Amino acid sequence: MSQHTQALTEFLASLHYEQLPEAVISRTEDLFLDWLGSALASQGSHPIPLFERYAAMMGPVSGPATILVSGKTSSAYFAALVNGASSHLVEQDDLHNSSVLHPATVVFPAVLAAAQDLGKSGRELIVAAVAGYEAGIRIGEFLGRSHYRIFHTTATVGTLAAAVGVGKLMDFNQEQFTHLLGTAGTQAAGLWEFLRDAADSKQLHTAKAAADGLLAAYLTAEGLSGAKNILEGEQGMAAGMSSDANPACLSDSLGSRWALIETSFKFHASCRHTHPAADALLEVMQRENLRAEDIARVITRVHQGAIDVLGRVQVPQTVHQAKFSMGTVLGLIAVYGKAGLPEFHQHALTDPRIGAFRDKVSMVLDEHVDGAYPQRWLGRVEVTTVQGRTVSGSIDEPKGDPGNTLSRAELEDKFRRLLAFSGACSDEQATGLVELVWHLRHLDNLDVLTRTAAPAGTAS
Amino acid sequence: MSQHTQALTEFLASLHYEQLPEAVISRTEDLFLDWLGSALASQGSHPIPLFERYAAMMGPVSGPATILVSGKTSSAYFAALVNGASSHLVEQDDLHNSSVLHPATVVFPAVLAAAQDLGKSGRELIVAAVAGYEAGIRIGEFLGRSHYRIFHTTATVGTLAAAVGVGKLMDFNQEQFTHLLGTAGTQAAGLWEFLRDAADSKQLHTAKAAADGLLAAYLTAEGLSGAKNILEGEQGMAAGMSSDANPACLSDSLGSRWALIETSFKFHASCRHTHPAADALLEVMQRENLRAEDIARVITRVHQGAIDVLGRVQVPQTVHQAKFSMGTVLGLIAVYGKAGLPEFHQHALTDPRIGAFRDKVSMVLDEHVDGAYPQRWLGRVEVTTVQGRTVSGSIDEPKGDPGNTLSRAELEDKFRRLLAFSGACSDEQATGLVELVWHLRHLDNLDVLTRTAAPAGTAS
Repeated sequence: MSQHTQALTEFLASLHYEQLPEAVISRTEDLFLDWLGSALASQGSHPIPLFERYAAMMGPVSGPATILVSGKTSSAYFAALVNGASSHLVEQDDLHNSSVLHPATVVFPAVLAAAQDLGKSGRELIVAAVAGYEAGIRIGEFLGRSHYRIFHTTATVGTLAAAVGVGKLMDFNQEQFTHLLGTAGTQAAGLWEFLRDAADSKQLHTAKAAADGLLAAYLTAEGLSGAKNILEGEQGMAAGMSSDANPACLSDSLGSRWALIETSFKFHASCRHTHPAADALLEVMQRENLRAEDIARVITRVHQGAIDVLGRVQVPQTVHQAKFSMGTVLGLIAVYGKAGLPEFHQHALTDPRIGAFRDKVSMVLDEHVDGAYPQRWLGRVEVTTVQGRTVSGSIDEPKGDPGNTLSRAELEDKFRRLLAFSGACSDEQATGLVELVWHLRHLDNLDVLTRTAAPAGTAS
Repeated sequence: MSQHTQALTEFLASLHYEQLPEAVISRTEDLFLDWLGSALASQGSHPIPLFERYAAMMGPVSGPATILVSGKTSSAYFAALVNGASSHLVEQDDLHNSSVLHPATVVFPAVLAAAQDLGKSGRELIVAAVAGYEAGIRIGEFLGRSHYRIFHTTATVGTLAAAVGVGKLMDFNQEQFTHLLGTAGTQAAGLWEFLRDAADSKQLHTAKAAADGLLAAYLTAEGLSGAKNILEGEQGMAAGMSSDANPACLSDSLGSRWALIETSFKFHASCRHTHPAADALLEVMQRENLRAEDIARVITRVHQGAIDVLGRVQVPQTVHQAKFSMGTVLGLIAVYGKAGLPEFHQHALTDPRIGAFRDKVSMVLDEHVDGAYPQRWLGRVEVTTVQGRTVSGSIDEPKGDPGNTLSRAELEDKFRRLLAFSGACSDEQATGLVELVWHLRHLDNLDVLTRTAAPAGTAS
């Protein structure tokens, strides 16, 4: 095992609550609320009911862990599976920039399910989530940009992040964390190919990452051994799935840099790669007092990753594809001033102004933007007006980034909007959940929270 | 979608029992018996009980599908998981040469579990298994040697092979098979890194391949969509995990070449990469009338894949590592004349003659052998005697290969030895199982078979 993997596993084994700065603890609560809203917002939306039916077919009739969208219970494995699928669906869950990892949608489903199963407290859940975020983000950074070109990092690295979170709940020692990484890493999978067809794999990826990570931890607890050098070994993850891996990332500033607080909240309900341009367009339209009909052409200057992920969709056929269409997102921004869930579901595919605006938008690779990525997601747009004037929009931190983050009031507002979107919970439930999550560190167990979240009319 | 994936999915959708040559049907029965013996032989051996405990924790108390080593029942998912782990443990399951895929250990656990769940017949199970073998073998050939250098093909491709088998049981049409490949392919995972540490991942790999393949089929049946071009697409399996993929392999002689009957049975209880040299050593020792103590040095001339997989183990610490130690395997052949399960468990680690012989054995890359691989696994050894004479041993088809296959009597004998090794079943049960499997095509359902296999004293 290399010094870097060694250092990472030692850090994970020794991590404890008292060591966490207040900013890390409270941000974990923020991220948890944000995640919970994302999960509940998917109630009833395809393909989530398929996962619920699968869990009912293959799992026990009831169990210690809660499937959030239904309020039903199952074993920890199936709760992690369905909640993992749920929380990535509306594209509103968090993202860490430099790792290009969505940590919440893989870490929280696994640690919440395991915490319910094992009777752990809110405080223990927070430490577990921090472990999952810190490890997952560093492993994502380690695998680098070449990995992300083909592999969906949230699926692959997400399996390890989820595993680490559950391993921390189980108080693993350094040796167990080593086996755990081996067992999780050799299950890591998830390819971007599905994007071209708007297939349902994105939900499958996060479902499986959360569930397989949990499986890895439970089997490790039982005594299953794993490869000691799965990350850096000659036949390990980097060898098979990266050409620019940097081992030093694995142990980068452990215990002093808290990568969790670098995580961005999503403000727009679209693929994160569209956000810098969306905010830059908003900036220039407000500054120049432009309306959608004033605009003849928008050139977005982007990083390569945006072209890789967004380049495929020409004319979106589904709401999900619309979230990956740069022209559609900018059209919603231009016409409605925002690109939230209601705009996507009510207007993205049907309002002719959106389709017309979409055709005015193009992406070009910008060396400066690409060079800053993935540490910084710069927004640069060039807008040509119908009068022929060209003006530029620019933002250096999209809304939701650490330097431009959401306040607790903004997070509450987003949470309520997410719950209202699906109708999963009443206003009273939303209020109760916000209250509980802001006291997450004081909860003796998590069942009070899942009971409060249970959709009206369901048995918990 | 390319013409090759299109042709493959059309073949799978239209495949039917009446189309199968008698040789394919009877060989499927042979392969099924061989697989069943391998699964039952692992009863009680680490790490199989860990998987059984995991299934008990996360699955239902009982269900339609049988966990072979315990005779307990569960849902199809957990039966596929545990049986997938079980059947690869003793390294006696079948192998297809040119794909370097072990089809039985991933296909049969999935199709047996699903057949029990869906109430399918032996005949339907045979067609499903043929579909899984034919697709899996071609996909393994498609991904090529570069894939196998880092990835455990039985894990990655195994996920698709298992999925196809279950999809066939569910009578999928061409469109469903397309979605199924997408959903299975994006879950494909499994790295060779574990070999260096003799970690338990090999069982995890086959367990997960069988179970994830089954999951893919059940979710596809529910309506989950998958990428249409997961094999050949720009961000698909070949793009991410191969550098020498050959799409023409996917549609190679569909319906006229039956790849299933090219599958080899394992005669020795070791990694298949040791078999050509083992048989070549046996050949020269018998021809030259040599005893172990006559031999000063053995040079095995091998293909690169053997060096990649076997090269790591120097002094084996476990029986499992011993099966991947060329020197240990040749030591058992030289001293005991065979390398079966009893030899591995009773002598491989403890008989000083084996350790001494191991140090006399080396591997060198042979261009001719490497050029023939993986279509042909040639055995070439150069033996130097203590008197200083050098003699060569050579075989072109290891025992168990299609041109040197095992008869039904030899398969029965191997089956009985496997069951006796673990004590899972009595002689009477073995006789009953052999009888049932030789009539597999006539069984209305598979429960009679799993009941007969249930270990004494267990409830089914």
